[in-house]
Amino acid sequence: MLLPEPIQNLIDAFSRLPGVGPKTASRLTFYLLRAPENLAHDLAEALTNLKTGTTYCRTCYNITSAGREECEICSSPTRDASLICVVEEPLDVIALERTGGYQGRYHVLHGALSPIEGIGPEQLKMRELIGRVRSGEVREVILATNPSMEGDYTAAYLRQQLQPLGLRLTRLARGLPVGGDLEYADQGTLLRALSGRQEMSE
Amino acid sequence: MLLPEPIQNLIDAFSRLPGVGPKTASRLTFYLLRAPENLAHDLAEALTNLKTGTTYCRTCYNITSAGREECEICSSPTRDASLICVVEEPLDVIALERTGGYQGRYHVLHGALSPIEGIGPEQLKMRELIGRVRSGEVREVILATNPSMEGDYTAAYLRQQLQPLGLRLTRLARGLPVGGDLEYADQGTLLRALSGRQEMSE
Repeated sequence: MLLPEPIQNLIDAFSRLPGVGPKTASRLTFYLLRAPENLAHDLAEALTNLKTGTTYCRTCYNITSAGREECEICSSPTRDASLICVVEEPLDVIALERTGGYQGRYHVLHGALSPIEGIGPEQLKMRELIGRVRSGEVREVILATNPSMEGDYTAAYLRQQLQPLGLRLTRLARGLPVGGDLEYADQGTLLRALSGRQEMSE
Repeated sequence: MLLPEPIQNLIDAFSRLPGVGPKTASRLTFYLLRAPENLAHDLAEALTNLKTGTTYCRTCYNITSAGREECEICSSPTRDASLICVVEEPLDVIALERTGGYQGRYHVLHGALSPIEGIGPEQLKMRELIGRVRSGEVREVILATNPSMEGDYTAAYLRQQLQPLGLRLTRLARGLPVGGDLEYADQGTLLRALSGRQEMSE
């Protein structure tokens, strides 16, 4: 049966989201059709404002509200500027902030090195990190990329780049499940990983 | 940590969808932030057009394209007008159409009777069904509400209402798993349920 075009369009759009199959997409669509509040409208508005209302922090490249030059963390005087935690994605910052156990600042790479997918240092915010470390009084860089092959490779590459600058380079403790994804870790595991961080050896 | 408002708004809106928790909502939101194509825009547009682009068929109350008075099935001369299949939701029509085994028409109640939730006959398209059966040359009504407590109750109520009109009243065969949801049934089960439909007894 041919569905009315507006319905089919929404099912198709939902199906493009990760983890949403055609069955879930049509359930969401028909739910929205009969939803009592103006949920479809609110969702459309939030989607429209998503990119116009956000920008990247010019220092750490985390996502922040449009109009700001620096994110809340980078512009906070209470956060230790001599400690930088390097992560792959903004969601990783949220996961680490949720632990309440970190008082330094961040640097978001927006991905990890992946020769297979053609992602090299130029595609990530690596030059910006190195420039930041060079210009500032950074004492330690925590390489908190995911404990996966790409994350380990990215950390190793960054260690190579940053080692000549003579600062402390650490990696989150292997309390994290290997091959997993940082943002899924529970707060206790992340706390232990933070406190048990180890010197990076050859 | 306080997220930028546009991001928090979208996470909140996604969380209002059925089956979407806060974790999934934030994953979807951050996925959309870095999605290469203009997915957020397409999704917003599809959501905006959802209600303006659709309307209800004035005969069977299934969803159809805006501007049409009757849906494709009701206006098709090849569909048997003397056979009406009564379902709870538009998704049930899609499930039955997918079987390819039904050539009659439909009537969508938009819910089931539920004294607990305060849903009575007035909240559903029941008067419209009775009027339709009265005015037309309807030979048989298949009461294809869900094989759940509410669905059975709704079917029993409709049988009571329609019996005086002297037509054949049937219920889908109990090949369907009791307590389940019609739209989840596989095509084979639905086909067997259609062909094995039985007279409604006291």
